[in-house]
Amino acid sequence: MSVPDLLEQAVEPTEYAGRLRRVRAALAERGFGALVVSDPANLFYLTGYDAWSFYTPQCLVVPTDGEPHLFARAMDAAGASYTCNLRDDQIHGYPEDLVHRPDVHPYDWIAGMAGDLIPAGVDVAVEADAHYFSARGYLALGNGLPGHRLVDSTELVNWIRLVKSPHELRQLRIAGAIAENAMRIALDQLQPGKRQCDLVAEILAAQATGTPEHGGDYPAIVPMLPTGDAAGTPHLTWTDRPFVSGEATTIELAGVFGRYHAPLARTVMLGDPPQRLRETAKIVAEGMRATLSTIRAGVTGSVVHSAFNDVIAAHGLVKDSRIGYSIGIGYPPDWGERTVSLRPGETTVLTAGMAFHVILGMWMDGWGYELSEPVVVTEDGVARLTGLPHELTIRR
Amino acid sequence: MSVPDLLEQAVEPTEYAGRLRRVRAALAERGFGALVVSDPANLFYLTGYDAWSFYTPQCLVVPTDGEPHLFARAMDAAGASYTCNLRDDQIHGYPEDLVHRPDVHPYDWIAGMAGDLIPAGVDVAVEADAHYFSARGYLALGNGLPGHRLVDSTELVNWIRLVKSPHELRQLRIAGAIAENAMRIALDQLQPGKRQCDLVAEILAAQATGTPEHGGDYPAIVPMLPTGDAAGTPHLTWTDRPFVSGEATTIELAGVFGRYHAPLARTVMLGDPPQRLRETAKIVAEGMRATLSTIRAGVTGSVVHSAFNDVIAAHGLVKDSRIGYSIGIGYPPDWGERTVSLRPGETTVLTAGMAFHVILGMWMDGWGYELSEPVVVTEDGVARLTGLPHELTIRR
Repeated sequence: MSVPDLLEQAVEPTEYAGRLRRVRAALAERGFGALVVSDPANLFYLTGYDAWSFYTPQCLVVPTDGEPHLFARAMDAAGASYTCNLRDDQIHGYPEDLVHRPDVHPYDWIAGMAGDLIPAGVDVAVEADAHYFSARGYLALGNGLPGHRLVDSTELVNWIRLVKSPHELRQLRIAGAIAENAMRIALDQLQPGKRQCDLVAEILAAQATGTPEHGGDYPAIVPMLPTGDAAGTPHLTWTDRPFVSGEATTIELAGVFGRYHAPLARTVMLGDPPQRLRETAKIVAEGMRATLSTIRAGVTGSVVHSAFNDVIAAHGLVKDSRIGYSIGIGYPPDWGERTVSLRPGETTVLTAGMAFHVILGMWMDGWGYELSEPVVVTEDGVARLTGLPHELTIRR
Repeated sequence: MSVPDLLEQAVEPTEYAGRLRRVRAALAERGFGALVVSDPANLFYLTGYDAWSFYTPQCLVVPTDGEPHLFARAMDAAGASYTCNLRDDQIHGYPEDLVHRPDVHPYDWIAGMAGDLIPAGVDVAVEADAHYFSARGYLALGNGLPGHRLVDSTELVNWIRLVKSPHELRQLRIAGAIAENAMRIALDQLQPGKRQCDLVAEILAAQATGTPEHGGDYPAIVPMLPTGDAAGTPHLTWTDRPFVSGEATTIELAGVFGRYHAPLARTVMLGDPPQRLRETAKIVAEGMRATLSTIRAGVTGSVVHSAFNDVIAAHGLVKDSRIGYSIGIGYPPDWGERTVSLRPGETTVLTAGMAFHVILGMWMDGWGYELSEPVVVTEDGVARLTGLPHELTIRR
C-alpha cells in the first residue's frame, strides 16, 4: 500500500516519468551532469516520498543520464517505499550514528555513495537555497565529491512545478474547499472572551478533518492570527490571550490535501470598525477585483501587480511587499514555491495552470488588514479556489 | 505588550543577560570575534524573538564584544519588538525586493550591515548545520565579509541551552501537562472506523487548547501516527484512512508551552494484540524502568543507553537508533536540541536541569512499538514530565 493510494492521490506513473524527463532536459540544457534534490516539496513532486524526516539530511540524486536514488536516515529509508515510487535498490539509508555528530556528517556518507552514480568530472547542481540543505551539508558534499564542481540549481525543480497538471489542479481544488471550511469556522467562532488558542484549536481541527470525502493534510505554516495592534505585523502566531471587543484580527491559514496548499486570509473586526479599517477594506476589495480581472494567460506578474497598485495609489495607499506568489506542494516552513512573485519587475509570463496566492496584506503601524485568494490561471482569466466574500467580517 | 507578557513567560532581563554572557564567554574561549545565530530556537533563547518568519533569512549577529543586532525581512523587522528584547536600533529590516531572487540574496545585504558590527579580521562563527541557514546564505555571507573567515560554531548556543533554568523547567512542566492531556485524548478516542485525520483533529485541538490556565503553543512536529504495517517506520504522518480492528498505531506528539516541548509517544492496539507486540511492550516497559532508574546527575549518556540495551538484549531484542535526546525550545522541523543523544559513545555527563525525551521506538519489519517519556535530570535521579502508565493501550 502506498500513500498515492491512501490519499487518493493517484499520480500516474506516466506523470512521474514526465516530471523526471523535464528535470533531466533542464539539467542537460544547463550542462549539469546531476542534481541533488533536498527540498521536501521537490522530493515529493519527483517520487511521492512523504514523511516528516526532513529534519535530518535527505536527498534525491538525479543523474542527467541514469535513475534517481534516494538517500535518507536508515530508519526513514526503511519505510520510504510506503510513499515513494522507487525500487528498494534505489533507496539508501545512512547509519544512525552519523546523526547529530560534530565530527562526521550524513553528507560525507551520501557523497561517498553518490560518487558512484555521477559520471566523472560533471558539474553537480544543488538546491543551494533550499530550507533543509545546510551549509555544513553543502561543504561535506563538496569535499566528498572532489572531482566535481557544485553549482546552484537556482530552484530548477521549483520552476518545473510552476504549471500544474490536471491531477494537481484537482488536489488544489480539494485544498480550496478545506481552506474555505476552516476559514468559515474561524470567522464564525471568533468571539470576545475566547482565548486565541481555543479559536486556533477549532481551525486546526477543521484543517485536519477536511471534508467527509477528503481528509485534510498538515499545513506548511500554522494558522497566524495577529490581533489588535499586533495585526500590523504579519507572522505572529497565537497566544492564550482572549479576544476583546474593539480589536481586529487578521487570520491566515491554508487548506491542504495531499501536500497541495490553498492559503487564505481574512480579517475580522469585533465591534464597530474604525473608519480607516472600513475604508482600507473597501479599497483592498477594489484592488482584489482589479487584480483578479487582470490575471490571465499571457500577462506578466509585474502587470498583475500594477493593476492592484494603481487602485490603492489612487486612494493614497502604499504597499511595499509583493501581492502574491506561486503555490502548489508545500512543506514547513513555507507554502510558496519560491519562483514567481506578483511584484514590480516580475517578467515571467503567466500561463494556464499556474496557481497563485494573491495576498493583499496591508500592515500599518499598529493595525492591519488582510484579504487573499488562492487562484488558478486559465486561458482567458482566473479560477478562484474558494468562495468566501472579499470583505471585512464584522462581528458585533 | 510583549510575548513574554502575553505567554506568561516572564523571562527576567537578568536571565537573558546571563544567556548572552555565557555565549560571549564561549565565543571568546574559542577565539571567535562574532557569532551569526540563525537557528530560530537560539534566536528565541537569546532575545525572545518569536514569529513564523524563519522561511526567509534572519539572524542575530552577536559580536564577542558588543551588542547583538537582529536582521530580518523588513515586514518582520517592523514587528520584531512585539516579542524580542532588543531596542529598535538593534533591529534591521532588509528590503522586500531581496526575497526569492536569483541574482541577489538577503545575506548580501546582511553581510554589508554586519561588517560594521564585527571587528576587522576576526573569525566569524556561523551555525553551519542549522535548518534555516542555507548554503547560498552561507556563501553570500562569506562573500560579503571578505576580511573574515567563517567557521562552524558547532551548535555553540544549543550546548549552552542544555541545562535549564528554573523558569525553563516551569515551562517544560506546563508543556508536560499539555502533552499528557493530548495523549489521553488520543488514547481514548482512537476507534475502529474513525478516520486518522479525525483523530488528529482532536489531538491538534488538545495541543492548542492546552489547559485552562495555559494555552498550548504549536509543536515543532505534527502528530505522527503510523498505523498497521506502516507502524514499522517512524515518521509517517496521517492519512484519511479509517482505523481498523486488529491494527496497532504508534502515536508521537508534543505538548508545547511558550516554545518549550514535552514530546510523548504511546502505542494503541485495536483488538487483541499479537503475542510479539504484547511481549515487546513488556520488555520495553522493563527497559524504561531501567533507563529512568539510571538517569541522574553524574552519569553519561552512554551509561543510560547501556541500561536500556542490557534489558532488551537479555530478551534477544536489538535497537540500532539512540534512545533519547536533549529537549527544550523547539521550532519546526525538530523539537530536539541537536546536542546530547542517549547512545553508545555519548561521553557528556548528565547534570541536574538537563531535559531529555527518552524514546524507546522499536521499528520492526511491518510493525512497531513506541513508548516514551520526557524527563528532567535531578541531582539524585529523574523527574517525569507526564504521568501516563508505561504500557501498551489495548482497546477492544
